This record gives sequence, structure tokens and C-alpha cells, in this order.
Amino acid sequence: MDLTQVLHMNGDVEEASYADNSLIQREAISLAKSSRVKAITNLYCSLCPRSFAIADLGCSSGPNTLLVTSEIIKVVEKLCQELNHQSPEYKVFLNDLSGNDFNSIFKSLDTFKEKLRDEIKTEIGPCYFSGVPGSFYGRIFPNESLHFVHSSYSLHWLSKVPRGVDNNKGNIYITNTSPSNVLEAYYEQFHIDFSLFLKCRAQEIVEGGFMILTLLGRENENLLSKGSSYGWELLSKAINDMVIQGIIEEEKLNTFNIPNYYPSPSEVKLEVLSEGSFSINQLEVSEVIGHALESDMSESMVKSTRAVFEPLLISHFGESVTKEVFERFRKILAAGISKERTRITNLTITLTRKP
Amino acid sequence: MDLTQVLHMNGDVEEASYADNSLIQREAISLAKSSRVKAITNLYCSLCPRSFAIADLGCSSGPNTLLVTSEIIKVVEKLCQELNHQSPEYKVFLNDLSGNDFNSIFKSLDTFKEKLRDEIKTEIGPCYFSGVPGSFYGRIFPNESLHFVHSSYSLHWLSKVPRGVDNNKGNIYITNTSPSNVLEAYYEQFHIDFSLFLKCRAQEIVEGGFMILTLLGRENENLLSKGSSYGWELLSKAINDMVIQGIIEEEKLNTFNIPNYYPSPSEVKLEVLSEGSFSINQLEVSEVIGHALESDMSESMVKSTRAVFEPLLISHFGESVTKEVFERFRKILAAGISKERTRITNLTITLTRKP
Repeated sequence: MDLTQVLHMNGDVEEASYADNSLIQREAISLAKSSRVKAITNLYCSLCPRSFAIADLGCSSGPNTLLVTSEIIKVVEKLCQELNHQSPEYKVFLNDLSGNDFNSIFKSLDTFKEKLRDEIKTEIGPCYFSGVPGSFYGRIFPNESLHFVHSSYSLHWLSKVPRGVDNNKGNIYITNTSPSNVLEAYYEQFHIDFSLFLKCRAQEIVEGGFMILTLLGRENENLLSKGSSYGWELLSKAINDMVIQGIIEEEKLNTFNIPNYYPSPSEVKLEVLSEGSFSINQLEVSEVIGHALESDMSESMVKSTRAVFEPLLISHFGESVTKEVFERFRKILAAGISKERTRITNLTITLTRKP
Repeated sequence: MDLTQVLHMNGDVEEASYADNSLIQREAISLAKSSRVKAITNLYCSLCPRSFAIADLGCSSGPNTLLVTSEIIKVVEKLCQELNHQSPEYKVFLNDLSGNDFNSIFKSLDTFKEKLRDEIKTEIGPCYFSGVPGSFYGRIFPNESLHFVHSSYSLHWLSKVPRGVDNNKGNIYITNTSPSNVLEAYYEQFHIDFSLFLKCRAQEIVEGGFMILTLLGRENENLLSKGSSYGWELLSKAINDMVIQGIIEEEKLNTFNIPNYYPSPSEVKLEVLSEGSFSINQLEVSEVIGHALESDMSESMVKSTRAVFEPLLISHFGESVTKEVFERFRKILAAGISKERTRITNLTITLTRKP
């Protein structure tokens, strides 16, 4: 399966569009706000770019898409007023895989710009938006063309399912019954992808430019620790039940593995240090258990999982089976959630491109 | 009616998608090829850009979208080989209104790049594609960010229906029964739009950069000469018949005017000279009567008209009425075409940004 062709957030799907079910992602963006404001302030004060190039990698298509862009522009405009500078021009690059719904983003831009101008009140510099399709595990921008790169809830997606995980039988992710080679294969794929990501961005970001990345991760070194991967055990249970009942072939389950990896802070740190082009300003660990998640937690978790993973499951299991998988997932979650609280761990890392 | 919100080429519509009915546009692109090759050659030899920024304004979404881009890259790569230069990197900006189907273009990019690499054989420089939504009757790119701008079959679209054409009763375009103020209003809107277009591009194109524009036009100064606007008389007849039969309200017809203008060579020249930032290298007049058009001419003309104008008509007349308008247009065309040959006049102008 070519992930770059299959993967996209759910569009206008009954009950589970990504646009309507991305509260966890919004919460994560909100948690990283203070780090972001600090980074933008540092960047603007050190480089003072007259043409400020911002990229959002894995921008998706929904209410979160332009949230950070709006914030960045507001911070810069405030600085310009305080420092009595003229506003720069803004070049905003919105990147995602080519299956993303760029049409919707583009249609919302006029309203977005209008709202932004209303909110800022002083006259802001011209804003040029463009959509840049393609995988960020490869070059997507010209050399030294970006000042500020932002990515939220995208980098825990691997470029593909790791090789050599065929013996992860009965599982759809790393669990305590996974053979050790499966754990190694997942880590290896994370290492390949994350180091390539850093290498590409190092060529695209100007010296002194900033990058701020938020991704799902783990708090500690135990690869089997619950947290971000808690949902996979429950989804796996739903699929396993359907195998037992003969609705899904065992082979279908055995060949399905979620192409995500939730690294620990030190795993992320190691990649940055090995690649060598960036210095680490800050590495934060935070948890999302917001009130938005508390109410109807299981319902909201099903919807947000569907919104993100449904296209992937449909391409493997087909449409009707996937529908039932999520039905069962809902029931399992509703039963399980009272016994065990899920906690979603976010890592946010702020980097500067070294000279 | 806000044209920037309504206007887009037909998507996957039964029988009349733009993708399947854009042969006239392809013919026009093909006719302008030699001018284009000359312009690219001149540009590359004089500027030798290491990062070659190309924009296609009004790129639409179909088989023609990447045709010119592919040709430009091939010409530059051939020059690089002849001159023993290293390939530049290419930045390709695809622009259209935000209603355009950018998603389809983005999904086709991988195949396009693969095919291009197969055809060129030698290793070509990296190609960075982006989609830029927005009206070209305004700034859409940063200052001095483009080397080569191309636009085909887009600039005869006005930014809006001219003001003060309410008394163009019974017509949907300029005809010999239009009051003189209607002719003036159309010309005035062309003047406003075309001069604004030139002013914006003058800021966006680097000194020595090239622009090549193909648009529907007229051969001579007579605003009422047939040619590009021949189809409007027949479409107007279809609508008038429906007014007489009480299917369309007269008021609906009277408030509908096609927001196109087909300028004469000297009208285009005048705008370029008045704006003053560009020098004219070449101004060509050509006619499209290709074999593609000869066979089943009326059928193909209905489809291509539908592909381009259907969204506009639907937004004014509604869906079912529009369907019938095109049914009747088909019959009228089939009857009329034998008596009178339609000729479509293209203007192609090649400009250089003055120092």
C-alpha cells in the first residue's frame, strides 16, 4: 500500500469528518502556543525578514488548518507595532499529502483573510497563500526558502508500514505480545523517516530559521507504555473479535499495521543531535486531557479516530467491514473508558537552524 | 454575483467536463508553441536563473493544465545540455480562482513528474509545485518572484460583468442591437481589468522576465465583428426562445451578461504601452479551425461551451433551465453551422519586463 496515495483525513463523511472531529489536535495546538509565541518572537527579532516565509507541514483541512498561521501573523504584527517596523509580506505555504482537501482550504481563504484583517485592525502586509502537495519525507520546498516551519500532529505518521512486521500476528500495532523484531522495525522506520525529515528541512530553512514540531509521543523509554497507543489495543480487540466470528479473514488482520510511531523525548532528541543541522531550544512533554475530551469521551474518541484513520482502514478492509469495526470500537471504548483513563502524550520540540 | 466565487470550469459533469472538452484550448496552446519556445529560449539565455520560477495563470484542471509547464522544462533542459549548464531548480506556480479543482491537479502531479523524467531522460533539476488560488486581477505573488508567466484562454474573462449594461435588453453579450453605452461599458471594464493585470504582474516579474498571454480576441477594430462572440448570438437565441415560451422570465435574461471581452490587437497593445512596464516582443493573431473542431463541430462546441460556462449559467438561471438552454443551443448550432463557419480568433502577446 502506498501511504502517500491512501492517507488523508476524512472529508465530508457522515458523523466523522475531520473538520468536525479534530478537537484533540486543536487542544495540542493550544498547548504549544506559548512555545510558539516565544519562537516567533525570537525569530522575528533576530532575522527581521521583510518577506516572511511560513510553512505548515501536514496542514490537513479543517478549523485547525489556519489557526497557527493566524497566530503567527498576529504575533509578528504586534512586534512590528512595538518596534515601529513596517509589516513584512507573508508567504504562507500549506503542505499536506496530495489526497488532502486543498479545495476546501482555498475556498476558505478569502473569509480567513477578511477575519484576520478585522481582528488585527492595523494594516497588515500582503499575505500570499499557496498549497504545496507532497510528502514531507522528501524535499518539498526550494533551498533556504523558509523562515518558520510548523507541524502539528503529523510527524508520528511514518512514511510507510515498517518492513518485516509480518509476524506481528493478531496485533495492529506494537503491544506486549509483539515479537521483538516488530518493536525494532517500528523504531528503525521512525529513525529513517525522522532523520530524513530533518535533513530535508535543514536544506529548506534559512540559517537562524525556526521549526516547531508537535507530535504524539511517549513520556518514557518503555515502548509498550500505554498512552498514545491505548486506542490501538481496543481497536485491535474489535478486529480480533470479528476474525473469531469469521467476518474478517485472519490474514487480513495479520497484514494490517498502523503506520504510526510515538517516540520518547530522548528518541527525538537523538535524531536531532545525530542529524546535526538544528539546535534544540526546548523539548516539552504535555498531556491532553481537556474538558473537550472529558464529555462523551468515548464517542469523541471514536469519531476522532475515524476522522483520521478511516481512509486507511477502508483501503485495507473495505468499507462495510470498517464501518462495523468502528461500531464495535465504540462499544469497547464505552465499556473500557471508565476503568482506565486514556492520556494522550504530546511532544513539542522547538529547533533553530544552525548557521 | 461575485464571479470569483462562481466561476470555475466544469468538474466531473456528465458529458461536459472541462477535462474532456478543452480541445479548443489545447489547439490554442499548440498554436502559440513557437512563440513560447522562442520566449523561453531568450529568457533562459539572458537570465540563466538557477531557480526558475514559472507561473501559469488560469491553469484550470484538465489535460492542458501541465502541458505548458512540461514544454517549458523540456526547452530549458535541452538548452542546459547544449550550453553544458547544470539544470536549474524549477518552481512551478499553478494559479486559478479558488473554485478550481486543485485537488485533481495535485493528485496527478506524481504521474506527471514520472512521465516528464521518462521523456527527458537526462537528470533534471528538482521541481517544486504549488497551487496559488486567487484572481489575477490583483496581487497573487510576492514582489519580483517570477521569471516566466504564462496564461492561456483566461484573460478574456473580465473580473465582473461591466457596470451599467442593464439596458442591454434581450442580449447576453455585445450585439448590433446593444445600445452604445453597453459597448463602452464592456470596453471600459476590459481597460480597467487588463491594465490592473499588467500593473500587478509588473511588480511580480523580475526585470528581464517574460510573459506570454493567449486570449480570445478580434481580428479588427469592429466590436461587432463575429468570430469569438458568434456563439453568444446563438446561445442568446436559445434563451430568448425560452423567454417567449414563458420558461425564463424576461427580467432574468435582461440581467444576464457574459463577463468576457475579446479585444483587438491594437486594444491590447494600447494597454501594454499605457501601463509602460513591459516591452512587446511579438503580437500574433491566429485562428483555431482545427480538425478537432471540424468533426461534429456543433456537438463539440456545445460541450466546450458547457464545460466553461455552465457554472455561470446555473448560478443565474438555475440547473434545470440551464440544461434546457444547452439542449436548444445544440439544435440551433446544428442548424446554423452549415450556413456560417465559426472562426475563433486568438491573440498571443509576448512581453518582456523592462529594466
